[in-house]
Amino acid sequence: MQPKSSFPLNVWYVAAWSHEVGKREPLGRTVCNRRMVLWRKSDNSIAALEDLCWHRLLPLSMGWLEGDEVVCRYHGLAFDGKGKCTRIPSMDKENSAARVRTFPVLEKHRFIFVWPGDPALADPALLPDLHWNDDPDWAGDGKTMFAKCDYRLFIDNLMDLTHESFVHATSIGNKHVAETPMTTTHSGRTVTSTRWMLDVDAPPFWRTQLGKPGNVDRWQIIRFEAPCTIVLDVGVAPTGTGAPQGDRSKGVNGHVLNTITPETDGTCMYFWSLMRNYKLRDQSLTTFLREANAGIFVEDQVVVEAQQRAMDQNPHIPLRNLNIDAGAMRARRAIDEMIAAETRIAAE
Amino acid sequence: MQPKSSFPLNVWYVAAWSHEVGKREPLGRTVCNRRMVLWRKSDNSIAALEDLCWHRLLPLSMGWLEGDEVVCRYHGLAFDGKGKCTRIPSMDKENSAARVRTFPVLEKHRFIFVWPGDPALADPALLPDLHWNDDPDWAGDGKTMFAKCDYRLFIDNLMDLTHESFVHATSIGNKHVAETPMTTTHSGRTVTSTRWMLDVDAPPFWRTQLGKPGNVDRWQIIRFEAPCTIVLDVGVAPTGTGAPQGDRSKGVNGHVLNTITPETDGTCMYFWSLMRNYKLRDQSLTTFLREANAGIFVEDQVVVEAQQRAMDQNPHIPLRNLNIDAGAMRARRAIDEMIAAETRIAAE
Amino acid sequence: MQPKSSFPLNVWYVAAWSHEVGKREPLGRTVCNRRMVLWRKSDNSIAALEDLCWHRLLPLSMGWLEGDEVVCRYHGLAFDGKGKCTRIPSMDKENSAARVRTFPVLEKHRFIFVWPGDPALADPALLPDLHWNDDPDWAGDGKTMFAKCDYRLFIDNLMDLTHESFVHATSIGNKHVAETPMTTTHSGRTVTSTRWMLDVDAPPFWRTQLGKPGNVDRWQIIRFEAPCTIVLDVGVAPTGTGAPQGDRSKGVNGHVLNTITPETDGTCMYFWSLMRNYKLRDQSLTTFLREANAGIFVEDQVVVEAQQRAMDQNPHIPLRNLNIDAGAMRARRAIDEMIAAETRIAAE
Repeated sequence: MQPKSSFPLNVWYVAAWSHEVGKREPLGRTVCNRRMVLWRKSDNSIAALEDLCWHRLLPLSMGWLEGDEVVCRYHGLAFDGKGKCTRIPSMDKENSAARVRTFPVLEKHRFIFVWPGDPALADPALLPDLHWNDDPDWAGDGKTMFAKCDYRLFIDNLMDLTHESFVHATSIGNKHVAETPMTTTHSGRTVTSTRWMLDVDAPPFWRTQLGKPGNVDRWQIIRFEAPCTIVLDVGVAPTGTGAPQGDRSKGVNGHVLNTITPETDGTCMYFWSLMRNYKLRDQSLTTFLREANAGIFVEDQVVVEAQQRAMDQNPHIPLRNLNIDAGAMRARRAIDEMIAAETRIAAE
Repeated sequence: MQPKSSFPLNVWYVAAWSHEVGKREPLGRTVCNRRMVLWRKSDNSIAALEDLCWHRLLPLSMGWLEGDEVVCRYHGLAFDGKGKCTRIPSMDKENSAARVRTFPVLEKHRFIFVWPGDPALADPALLPDLHWNDDPDWAGDGKTMFAKCDYRLFIDNLMDLTHESFVHATSIGNKHVAETPMTTTHSGRTVTSTRWMLDVDAPPFWRTQLGKPGNVDRWQIIRFEAPCTIVLDVGVAPTGTGAPQGDRSKGVNGHVLNTITPETDGTCMYFWSLMRNYKLRDQSLTTFLREANAGIFVEDQVVVEAQQRAMDQNPHIPLRNLNIDAGAMRARRAIDEMIAAETRIAAE
Repeated sequence: MQPKSSFPLNVWYVAAWSHEVGKREPLGRTVCNRRMVLWRKSDNSIAALEDLCWHRLLPLSMGWLEGDEVVCRYHGLAFDGKGKCTRIPSMDKENSAARVRTFPVLEKHRFIFVWPGDPALADPALLPDLHWNDDPDWAGDGKTMFAKCDYRLFIDNLMDLTHESFVHATSIGNKHVAETPMTTTHSGRTVTSTRWMLDVDAPPFWRTQLGKPGNVDRWQIIRFEAPCTIVLDVGVAPTGTGAPQGDRSKGVNGHVLNTITPETDGTCMYFWSLMRNYKLRDQSLTTFLREANAGIFVEDQVVVEAQQRAMDQNPHIPLRNLNIDAGAMRARRAIDEMIAAETRIAAE
């Protein structure tokens, strides 16, 4: 039986890119059905409150910032970063009941993470590993897609890259992907699927990146960290230069960072970034890769949103699993276990 | 506990401006979930029928007028102003069962009022006082806003003008409004809130209207008449000329007429008019004030529609009340009493 | 009491025009709540499958054709015209469980018909008679309207052409239609309503088609074949040339083919064609008539969609029937009987 909830709550989810949260205007975002208002204080730390004025429920994200506080656009109530109401019009004394809920928040690796669940459990050690995003040995950039689907459809999509051959037939896909099986291992909250395509023709994208003729050894190592982060370690190296044995120095390597935050049960925010370990100072290449990848990811969005609509229209027809879905099945199981563990705790 | 219905039915509600109901085309409007078709007969009286053809339910407002009757666009059934079907195609004799419900209707002060409740109770003495709208001592004009919210959110909004300081910070608001308390009195179906700001700087709007330098005494007298009419008596006079004591002759005075008709539980029509007692023949000023006010009221619409969405998304979170909401609370109580009285009668 | 379902399933419904189903791209259509993907195979026969990939529910109509098979855009599963999965990526052996439902399908008279019900009952003898559509003695063309209403509202509309006087007052309607009664006969699944208007002025449309002055005998013979096909045999001939007695040779005659396929309970596809027995090689006339008729039918669509909305808003108000609705009532009864018969069989 499916768990009722589609996401666990005691998780660090990306709510925004760092550059989206500033000192000039509050930002409204929804994470796990919780509406939040985010802003940056003068000491550069981030505030994350429930996006509802205590008084008349107007979203605080419609208001403005005054110093380190957010001011409601309706009647001017002001709230500090701890959710305390510091000003009520026509009232001199404070009303200690006038509070807005806060959410644990962290900034790391160019992202703003929030914790929608129990604040007492919010441990920074549980942040997913996205270090490539601001590691000086890597260069690149990314974007955000807002999609009308359960975030797990993107997890399924990423855990099985055979879809590249069909969804992305004109760009990164070719027949070798669909024809080569994957090896999947798992441990706790992580699932790793590995595919090595040895001595194959490179698809157009990788051919260009490598800049050399001849057959290649191509790898796709998919590392999932429950519930919603997937890092794709992908690349090619000239056949015979030792990549399968661990020497990637003659090849080119990218890490595609994907973290898909559930907004609601039927919508999500997909944050992604494309980081590479070559031509680090080539901003034109960064821009080209980001925009090219954005185009490819829209192909996925079209497909999974259509899948979501078909699932909604056919609630009694199950999804079927094939060999290619072994990684996705493992990932789903890890998500389900996190949700079930929270449900057990809540029931105690 | 909240009453189930959000509006009383035995009330004269504004359905349209007088000039909107003519002899050329029928007009469709919705008042308290009742769809109505309105038109003007040759003697200038108004007809108000349920907007559904008796035969196949097509809205009669999609049809046309022939003399004093409305003709259904589908099969040509004709109905007179009393709801009687006077013509059925291919039938010679009358069908006395073929009738459409009528609603009591009155025209007064440039508005068309309808009574969606029990016709036997429709007493013209119960019309709200909007006489400024066609009083020769006053000049001005107004418009209609169609808004996606419970009409009572506009009542709350108008009963507490401290919101001017925040919602309308760039036009009519300034800090004196939020800082000066109101006095509220009530009696039967009316609630009156009064705020006098003595010896204050005038905000830009009033400075221009007065046309004189120096500090002013400014007043805001809000008169609510349940369930949905609010007249704002607002103005400024030079400090020391006796306005607080009753002599407004050196100042300028406006009456902002507001009457907000519930269309459905979640939508409303907001009819407003801005009437002044100075420069009566200045049509340019009338047009300027009407358009300027329209812009200000859209600022309110944006806020209360956002409040409505937040309330819908958070049905279990109550609205909280502050000192500034004393008038709104009284107004809500008067509305609730009208609804409760109708519910008791219906239960007997 | 109304039957719960609004349509019978054991019926040949038009799903598309012949020219819409080709060998280059699959076509997605919905018939009786069944989503279908249609394509043309190399032998020109038609395939009709459920429009859901067995694996992850993506609509197959989003995919592409390879030879006689449709390929899923997501992971490349291929299905033949019998619904058998012929290719699964990364799997060598076949999975006989991987099947997609097929629908009986026929091509006839320029239309593609599908049978959404029990395939064992799909008898080509049950096809509705639309032979004028490719009969060499007749010329003409048609189009498709996608409408937001129960298909039966169009049946009501067509069974009583008095609406022409009101809905189409400026084109084909005139007062004679509303003033002349119809004769209705019925037999099994067919209902026939006949109206002869003798020695009358011709409306503008027919005046032009006839190309002669003087009064005419005008006929409208409406033949309904349950559940959703109506052929209008319409025309005029100069009065006194014997048309009422059977000699139409001096007149002009059209057959308006109408077949309205339920997509869902609240939407339909209205396929129509306007066929004539004069000026057979005049393509300009064919185009003119098709476009003129399209404009007239949009007038009907506006009316019946508004009727549908009014019915949805007033679920407890019944439709009333007049003399003019005798044909529609008979047609509705024939539809209800088909639905009831299927319900009885299903209950046995």
